[in-house]
Amino acid sequence: MSATRYTYLGPEGTFTEAALRTLPEAATRELVPLASVPAALDAVRAGEAAGAFVPVENSVEGAVTATSDELASGAPLMIYREVLLPITFALLVRPGTSLADVKTVTSHPVAQPQVRRWMAANLPDAQWEAAASNADGARLVQEGRFDGAFAGEFAAALYGLEPLVSDIHDAANATTRFLLVGRPGRVSSPTGLDKTSMVVWLPDDHPGALLELLQEFAVRGINLMRIESRPTGEGMGNYCFLIDCEGHLSERRVSEALMGLKRICPQVRFLGSYPRADRGSQRPVRPGTTDADFSEAADWLSRCLDGRGEL
Amino acid sequence: MSATRYTYLGPEGTFTEAALRTLPEAATRELVPLASVPAALDAVRAGEAAGAFVPVENSVEGAVTATSDELASGAPLMIYREVLLPITFALLVRPGTSLADVKTVTSHPVAQPQVRRWMAANLPDAQWEAAASNADGARLVQEGRFDGAFAGEFAAALYGLEPLVSDIHDAANATTRFLLVGRPGRVSSPTGLDKTSMVVWLPDDHPGALLELLQEFAVRGINLMRIESRPTGEGMGNYCFLIDCEGHLSERRVSEALMGLKRICPQVRFLGSYPRADRGSQRPVRPGTTDADFSEAADWLSRCLDGRGEL
Amino acid sequence: MSATRYTYLGPEGTFTEAALRTLPEAATRELVPLASVPAALDAVRAGEAAGAFVPVENSVEGAVTATSDELASGAPLMIYREVLLPITFALLVRPGTSLADVKTVTSHPVAQPQVRRWMAANLPDAQWEAAASNADGARLVQEGRFDGAFAGEFAAALYGLEPLVSDIHDAANATTRFLLVGRPGRVSSPTGLDKTSMVVWLPDDHPGALLELLQEFAVRGINLMRIESRPTGEGMGNYCFLIDCEGHLSERRVSEALMGLKRICPQVRFLGSYPRADRGSQRPVRPGTTDADFSEAADWLSRCLDGRGEL
Amino acid sequence: MSATRYTYLGPEGTFTEAALRTLPEAATRELVPLASVPAALDAVRAGEAAGAFVPVENSVEGAVTATSDELASGAPLMIYREVLLPITFALLVRPGTSLADVKTVTSHPVAQPQVRRWMAANLPDAQWEAAASNADGARLVQEGRFDGAFAGEFAAALYGLEPLVSDIHDAANATTRFLLVGRPGRVSSPTGLDKTSMVVWLPDDHPGALLELLQEFAVRGINLMRIESRPTGEGMGNYCFLIDCEGHLSERRVSEALMGLKRICPQVRFLGSYPRADRGSQRPVRPGTTDADFSEAADWLSRCLDGRGEL
Repeated sequence: MSATRYTYLGPEGTFTEAALRTLPEAATRELVPLASVPAALDAVRAGEAAGAFVPVENSVEGAVTATSDELASGAPLMIYREVLLPITFALLVRPGTSLADVKTVTSHPVAQPQVRRWMAANLPDAQWEAAASNADGARLVQEGRFDGAFAGEFAAALYGLEPLVSDIHDAANATTRFLLVGRPGRVSSPTGLDKTSMVVWLPDDHPGALLELLQEFAVRGINLMRIESRPTGEGMGNYCFLIDCEGHLSERRVSEALMGLKRICPQVRFLGSYPRADRGSQRPVRPGTTDADFSEAADWLSRCLDGRGEL
Repeated sequence: MSATRYTYLGPEGTFTEAALRTLPEAATRELVPLASVPAALDAVRAGEAAGAFVPVENSVEGAVTATSDELASGAPLMIYREVLLPITFALLVRPGTSLADVKTVTSHPVAQPQVRRWMAANLPDAQWEAAASNADGARLVQEGRFDGAFAGEFAAALYGLEPLVSDIHDAANATTRFLLVGRPGRVSSPTGLDKTSMVVWLPDDHPGALLELLQEFAVRGINLMRIESRPTGEGMGNYCFLIDCEGHLSERRVSEALMGLKRICPQVRFLGSYPRADRGSQRPVRPGTTDADFSEAADWLSRCLDGRGEL
Repeated sequence: MSATRYTYLGPEGTFTEAALRTLPEAATRELVPLASVPAALDAVRAGEAAGAFVPVENSVEGAVTATSDELASGAPLMIYREVLLPITFALLVRPGTSLADVKTVTSHPVAQPQVRRWMAANLPDAQWEAAASNADGARLVQEGRFDGAFAGEFAAALYGLEPLVSDIHDAANATTRFLLVGRPGRVSSPTGLDKTSMVVWLPDDHPGALLELLQEFAVRGINLMRIESRPTGEGMGNYCFLIDCEGHLSERRVSEALMGLKRICPQVRFLGSYPRADRGSQRPVRPGTTDADFSEAADWLSRCLDGRGEL
Repeated sequence: MSATRYTYLGPEGTFTEAALRTLPEAATRELVPLASVPAALDAVRAGEAAGAFVPVENSVEGAVTATSDELASGAPLMIYREVLLPITFALLVRPGTSLADVKTVTSHPVAQPQVRRWMAANLPDAQWEAAASNADGARLVQEGRFDGAFAGEFAAALYGLEPLVSDIHDAANATTRFLLVGRPGRVSSPTGLDKTSMVVWLPDDHPGALLELLQEFAVRGINLMRIESRPTGEGMGNYCFLIDCEGHLSERRVSEALMGLKRICPQVRFLGSYPRADRGSQRPVRPGTTDADFSEAADWLSRCLDGRGEL
């Protein structure tokens, strides 16, 4: 039944599935791997799933543009949760294989730069070839087509392999960020440590518009967490921006900034306010921009209109 | 009775009185000249007058700092009207005096630079001395202490003098701006061409605060019409700013900007929204900052909170 | 010999080769297709080629992140030329094939969304599969593995195919932008219509830095043409920005802005100033920001230091 | 001889003279009191004096507009030194007078608000009248026309009076700032703790110009110390701004900002760079804006033009 189904970017055994399983509600959902980000999201749009779980950016590889583009176009979707998953690889082999036996390895192309230095040091003569996904690489090892696959350690059991080496990662702190996306609905209550996402289209032929847009945030003390440009498809030089900022739409500084964007931009798509996954790193709200400050200012304004501004 | 009394900066026969008489309601008020701006305003504060009419700036001489300082401190007052009066002087003399007879002239010191070039050309040998006001100068001519007084032509009759030369002014377009000030009350309705005045104190030890303050206006497309710095009396380097901007407090762009100031500044004193006297020169409101734009954005925000932002 | 060799993103018969051949100097160079953007650029770094020609962004698909990342890291490179190529596809088939015969088609995955609507209308039942490149798709048609390939029309002859349908493109104005990249060298002279590219790393833990960075351009009237964020590899939330702006490094407004970036950012990589390919669309330089304005201001400053600022 | 003569705003015995005498060089100059700020400055313009010493602002009363207007118009002048003098008043009386004997007092009108509260507490029944200067008030006491004069304690001896009460001041920290002004000349060397003064005219009909002007400072990390608006005399609503900022014209951040102003404003008058009188209160220069940072950035730029930006 769709209300209990979550789609995700498959196949089984990838980091996406591992990240999805960190969500408590995943335990009670039917988890359905699909072949692409658009497929996973379209199932939600079609009402065949309550949510779709997809990667959105990797700290080494950058944005997953398929996700960005799906969020920015087509029937609207909304983000309800984010998950950060540290990415480290295991070298998965058939039981009994030793490092000296490994002549050929495979992985998803995105994994390759993240294990390149480890390979140069430990498997200098091994040949690498691309697989459709890290899990698919594991399957190919199971089938005997390669000696080893770089994949998440959690994929070993699924394919009858074992991790020969664990915790392989060239870049310290490689992390992938995933989103749980659903059909648009009522924004859930703020937790005090939230993030708000949106897509903003700049007005045509207004070269200073990006600066103006950033000032809508700056003047209200809102920190940006991410800004990604994507082509609008309207010809070279036309971009929209996916923006994540600190705070929740129900906070006044955030809602006022978004209304400001709405007034200066031809199109703004609100993508959701949801709890931040990095719960330890919040900056304090700038003095003068708390909800209490906004309320006080609104009260003062009402008094001013009545001639009692200084009472 | 105080409700029908307006005080003004006297004495009778000055430009202030002439400007006051351009207000239709002046015809039905008791007009009481007082000796100083503080005296005129204190009468309003004390409930002895319904309004006080005082000069606030001259396009040649600049701000009337007594007015600025009174508006910025003491019991709050509010501005209800402004009047712009072109300033040209007449040389007033006792009947029968010819230009060749004029050896000594007088005027308020503020008038002197505005007639200096005319004097150099037409009365190069005449001696000028200061009077307490232009009208007082006329009185001194009446008493025979000077041969001529530079004053408004309207002052002639009051002192039994006649204008020997009219329309004297070194600077083209010399204008004085006057304010009708009362006790704080409900802000009157917008006329579509209004001005809003306020006093803003900057936060201590925050060198970028003036820029931030101006950005609260700029980000909402509000043009400033005047900015005047005044010392706060808290030691050298501490200023407050008297600001006039376009628009009315009941317009959303203006009210949001003022609430922004209120949030970042330790003190903001709203001085009123009132019709502009220069009714021909309005700039169009920047696209995206009309009240309709604000309403539309607020509606959109409500829909976003309900998950219907794109409907 | 390396001085006459240009590498490019192969294989032969792709849009990249077609774009490269629009450069006059390509006629006198040895053009060497390589399998990846890093391979093409590394040949330049190693001194094995004088230039590398690679795609950098597509108006539908966005940035070619391999190119962005190569420009931002590794041994420095410099951009010397850009080329804009309108992208339209032909359906290439073996001679004698009719539209009704086409049951299977292939192309590079990037091409697929750009022909999706055409396929739905004209080949609703055909199966699409991915090829390693559009040219490789043509080769697979030549080998009989598919009935048709979406590729540039120019690829037909190379593989003994013919264009059954031409000028296929879902998005009007789909364009790809290519760069000719070489080892760093003296910047060539301005043409009056140039573009400057750079990579800028933001200071850590300074949330307002992006705004400050944009203000370095805005305050000098420089329009941005493109801004792309890329992860630095230093963990989630750390980005660098690839920026293209109007103007040439030898213009004062541009050099002063870049020096400004250099002073506020921990790292700035200058990527070159080169002629704009879209030669018809320049905005006029903002008054006060021409080289003549800068010279005049510098002369004035020298005079000020000598006490002759007003002479 | 003019080279050794300093004029100042007289008469003798005022705070201006007291402030002037704090300058070491005053001991070797002929000090000539003149009746007005314009007279003192015109003597310098005419070559009759090497310098003129005049008040420019008071922390209670604000700008001395005569000084502002003289600096902004007429033949150019330059500021070479500033002096800050704490202002406290003494009640000067003829020898033998007791507080109970004081029925009438006098002072310059500017002094009156600064002693008002003291009078209310200590001389509630005394009558105050205006004098042309505080020193002139002392003279009037000497002549027997008043019982007491509020003036600087240093004026007592000059007029044969004695201070009955000292250290009278309603506002704590009341201070007056004075300037030593001369004909324009070579700017003296920076001391490491300097201030730069200028007059800036805004472009007509460009409502955002004040913000742009402030951004020229902000983008280079320069703190403003004072901004004063003055009418240009070109009609209501046209202002120029007298600005004091931190730093010396020979510092790159300052010179670049002034060149920026010069490029966007129709007129900029440089008024001098000179040592700050408040030597204890400097803010650190913002990182990235020291002369060393500017030099480094310029070196980098030269290397970039040569293709060696990263060496």
